[in-house]
Amino acid sequence: MNILNLQDIEQEAALRLDSNALEYYRGGAADELTLRRNRSDFDDIVLYPRVLRDVSHRSLRCTLLGQTFDMPIGIAPTAMQCLAHHEGERATAHAAVAMNVPMILSTTSTIAVEDVAQVEGVQLWFQVYVYKDRATTQEIVQRAVHAGCTALVLTVDAPYLGKREREARIGFHLPEHLCLPHYTRLQAAHVPAHQGESGLVRHFAQNIDPALTWNDILWLEKISGVPVIVKGIMRADDAIQAAAYGARGIIVSNHGGRQLDTVQSSIRALPAVADAVGHC
Amino acid sequence: MNILNLQDIEQEAALRLDSNALEYYRGGAADELTLRRNRSDFDDIVLYPRVLRDVSHRSLRCTLLGQTFDMPIGIAPTAMQCLAHHEGERATAHAAVAMNVPMILSTTSTIAVEDVAQVEGVQLWFQVYVYKDRATTQEIVQRAVHAGCTALVLTVDAPYLGKREREARIGFHLPEHLCLPHYTRLQAAHVPAHQGESGLVRHFAQNIDPALTWNDILWLEKISGVPVIVKGIMRADDAIQAAAYGARGIIVSNHGGRQLDTVQSSIRALPAVADAVGHC
Amino acid sequence: MNILNLQDIEQEAALRLDSNALEYYRGGAADELTLRRNRSDFDDIVLYPRVLRDVSHRSLRCTLLGQTFDMPIGIAPTAMQCLAHHEGERATAHAAVAMNVPMILSTTSTIAVEDVAQVEGVQLWFQVYVYKDRATTQEIVQRAVHAGCTALVLTVDAPYLGKREREARIGFHLPEHLCLPHYTRLQAAHVPAHQGESGLVRHFAQNIDPALTWNDILWLEKISGVPVIVKGIMRADDAIQAAAYGARGIIVSNHGGRQLDTVQSSIRALPAVADAVGHC
Amino acid sequence: MNILNLQDIEQEAALRLDSNALEYYRGGAADELTLRRNRSDFDDIVLYPRVLRDVSHRSLRCTLLGQTFDMPIGIAPTAMQCLAHHEGERATAHAAVAMNVPMILSTTSTIAVEDVAQVEGVQLWFQVYVYKDRATTQEIVQRAVHAGCTALVLTVDAPYLGKREREARIGFHLPEHLCLPHYTRLQAAHVPAHQGESGLVRHFAQNIDPALTWNDILWLEKISGVPVIVKGIMRADDAIQAAAYGARGIIVSNHGGRQLDTVQSSIRALPAVADAVGHC
Repeated sequence: MNILNLQDIEQEAALRLDSNALEYYRGGAADELTLRRNRSDFDDIVLYPRVLRDVSHRSLRCTLLGQTFDMPIGIAPTAMQCLAHHEGERATAHAAVAMNVPMILSTTSTIAVEDVAQVEGVQLWFQVYVYKDRATTQEIVQRAVHAGCTALVLTVDAPYLGKREREARIGFHLPEHLCLPHYTRLQAAHVPAHQGESGLVRHFAQNIDPALTWNDILWLEKISGVPVIVKGIMRADDAIQAAAYGARGIIVSNHGGRQLDTVQSSIRALPAVADAVGHC
Repeated sequence: MNILNLQDIEQEAALRLDSNALEYYRGGAADELTLRRNRSDFDDIVLYPRVLRDVSHRSLRCTLLGQTFDMPIGIAPTAMQCLAHHEGERATAHAAVAMNVPMILSTTSTIAVEDVAQVEGVQLWFQVYVYKDRATTQEIVQRAVHAGCTALVLTVDAPYLGKREREARIGFHLPEHLCLPHYTRLQAAHVPAHQGESGLVRHFAQNIDPALTWNDILWLEKISGVPVIVKGIMRADDAIQAAAYGARGIIVSNHGGRQLDTVQSSIRALPAVADAVGHC
Repeated sequence: MNILNLQDIEQEAALRLDSNALEYYRGGAADELTLRRNRSDFDDIVLYPRVLRDVSHRSLRCTLLGQTFDMPIGIAPTAMQCLAHHEGERATAHAAVAMNVPMILSTTSTIAVEDVAQVEGVQLWFQVYVYKDRATTQEIVQRAVHAGCTALVLTVDAPYLGKREREARIGFHLPEHLCLPHYTRLQAAHVPAHQGESGLVRHFAQNIDPALTWNDILWLEKISGVPVIVKGIMRADDAIQAAAYGARGIIVSNHGGRQLDTVQSSIRALPAVADAVGHC
Repeated sequence: MNILNLQDIEQEAALRLDSNALEYYRGGAADELTLRRNRSDFDDIVLYPRVLRDVSHRSLRCTLLGQTFDMPIGIAPTAMQCLAHHEGERATAHAAVAMNVPMILSTTSTIAVEDVAQVEGVQLWFQVYVYKDRATTQEIVQRAVHAGCTALVLTVDAPYLGKREREARIGFHLPEHLCLPHYTRLQAAHVPAHQGESGLVRHFAQNIDPALTWNDILWLEKISGVPVIVKGIMRADDAIQAAAYGARGIIVSNHGGRQLDTVQSSIRALPAVADAVGHC
């Protein structure tokens, strides 16, 4: 098949992946209203192009946190990429290098940050879940910075795992031959299913700290010495607050519609946030 | 099957119920425009969540008419629950206790209020249809209060039965082994179908008083000695009127889209009513 | 089958009618956009009902042109009703009597006005197409008034026949055993198909006068001595004009979506017209 | 089959054309959002017709650039018409004559302008792509004017070919028995597919000049001596600019949704342009 667009990739994935991986990747929370809005709201955006402007030279180059990239697009943190391919996050790093864009590595990656960072030329940022066990959080963060990650991306929209019915129906679990290398200290490196429930539900409830507040942005910057980007803000007022507490960037995101359903689409939330803090 | 959401319950019900019960439960009036709006208007509600607020402690507790419940959700009065299960309204009462929410028992229940009230810990309110025979109405209301109901819920959107085509097509009737125990004095305890028409059409036309006015709120409070909640108001002006005549609560409802079709969805009608009388 | 609503009637008709009649009755012009809007715009109308008003006595009675009817609904002129049933317009007249509503008889009826008028108690108005042959028009109009029609209904939205593709595809024609009794003088009593085109196309092009103007309202009233209602107005300014030229009533209509496609639905056009001339 | 409307023609075409031609003709860019909007936005246009105005005489005649036509509709430039029929652009010219409307001949026609111009009575305008090779552009333009074209139509929305996935999937190519006669000097008269990509992608990338600016309107008028119409403007500000640089007409167009997807529909873009320059 000739892969021309994202739909082609999704079709191909549906043929190749087992249901455990497929339902994990494609599912959203609850009725998947936000998941669908995330997609359909893009279709409603209308462009008003200009003509006769000499477009023989064009550039999408941009500078983010002092680094230069070929386009203002990055690779979002996606967990457990070895579910799809045994090269997992390493393969993604190669793609990031090929396109010269940043890659955000998930804390719940299936390949350790040290191994991903060995990919020649990759510009890595590290996505952080803050655990109830703060000492372990600090250790993982410092390990990521030591490996070469130049920024942290703090996820703030997941104090509890979204109600993901697809994962519950298939009893989502991390296959036995995989593990989460950053969680070995937490003894949570394996994610088995529990009683017809996704293994992630217990994983989140046991490990993730739901008491996170604005001061944790400052704390993360202090323990890491690198800029902190906040991921999961959907409101202008929260964006202003984040900037006031030292956030060096904001990723407007509803977690791909996987956390709280009925939330606005990310693309609709973006303009108000950009207006509020886009020029900080 | 793993029951995860309301759609699952509906699917399961469609497998288990006979068509007489199923069409009664799932039908709306006429073209079912309002029935569909009641559902789809929920999907259009957009949440704008805040982040980084420390959500380790959360509570939905609330106080209604002096009683404390675990969440601001109650069980609406639904008629003839033994159509679905022989434990009927008693089973529902156990669920209400388990969740610590109020249960509103329908006048047209298939289990008597005295029997439902025996469920340990249940907080019962009693739904009232006012009959042309006011003496019988008074007797039923006083019987409910005596059994332990702590509030009355007066239905005001059903002076005549809605034009329910599903019920007409199947000739809806109460099966012979069931009866309506609160109607024995009215000699209307059985609801047989009539000439390809739902048995409820004649039942309503013969018994229910279409001459109801605001003063009946006062009358009900006087004969019962308990607070009266008005169910079926969809307009701010009517809500103000109800409050002026002593209503202690208002349930914004279009009767599940089963009475007058083309009416606004309940969830869309709610904000204007809340603005008008929410702080009375 | 239990006939409960209009959709049931349409389904039943689809089973009983031959395609010549069925496609004629159910078709609209061109892409049938207006035909669908006529239906769907009704579904978008939202009612905001009041409660507790004593509805034991209700009445839809109304007076139109000095006649009293049981509801403000009449039977619109529909051509060639014997296509559906051999009793045709006579059967419709019996229905009008049963419901005590006015019946508008089409000029292109398949039963003569004198025969329809014999139905005991029928209140008949007569729909008029003005022909190029004005003498014949006058003769038909006077014949209708003599038979007992108490008003004329002048159709103004059909100077040419709408582009009805369903009629073209089936080569619509009036079956040989039927004729249009009011057209015998015009030698157009039969409506054969022509070369894969609806027979009505030639019928209209040959007979109907496309030069109609406001003065024809006055002319019709003068030659008939009865009130003239104008049917087919969709704009407030045209309604004001019609009233100024003596129209005694206006029927806001787009001819069932059968004339000019892409026109607004009739129900959407109604409020502006009612505001402009509703109290003349 | 009785061809009554454009949908019928599309269905018939789907039966008769091979997939190379069919996918080329019916495809749009990317997700075809604009392609669908171009169609559906027409359906949303509502007409508000007047009545009783004497419509026995009607005329759509109009004058464009000093020429009189029977209606204000012309034949847009469509490339490679011999894909559909061996008479190709000549057959279209006969249709233009029959309807007395202008025909715009594409630079990428499969029949030479001299041959099309021989059709008796045809009023030809010539669509221009400006090539990187300006000398060849000038030669083609002068050849068209010499053959009898009375205006040039400069396409400005195609500095690069749209991302047309249908063409890519079938590996679109011009069949060997056809060629582009105006491209013989460019040695681009044949359009073979390349590696699962439409042959047009390379054709455009190699030949078309993406450095076009407003001054090229003046240049074209100067080298041709005939009026220049600009095709592909979708904004009022660009239309004003075009007029200031000597454009004698503007065709509001998004290239049939085949260039930049997510652009507004042409019919929606039209009013603002007409307001800005309609009376220049």
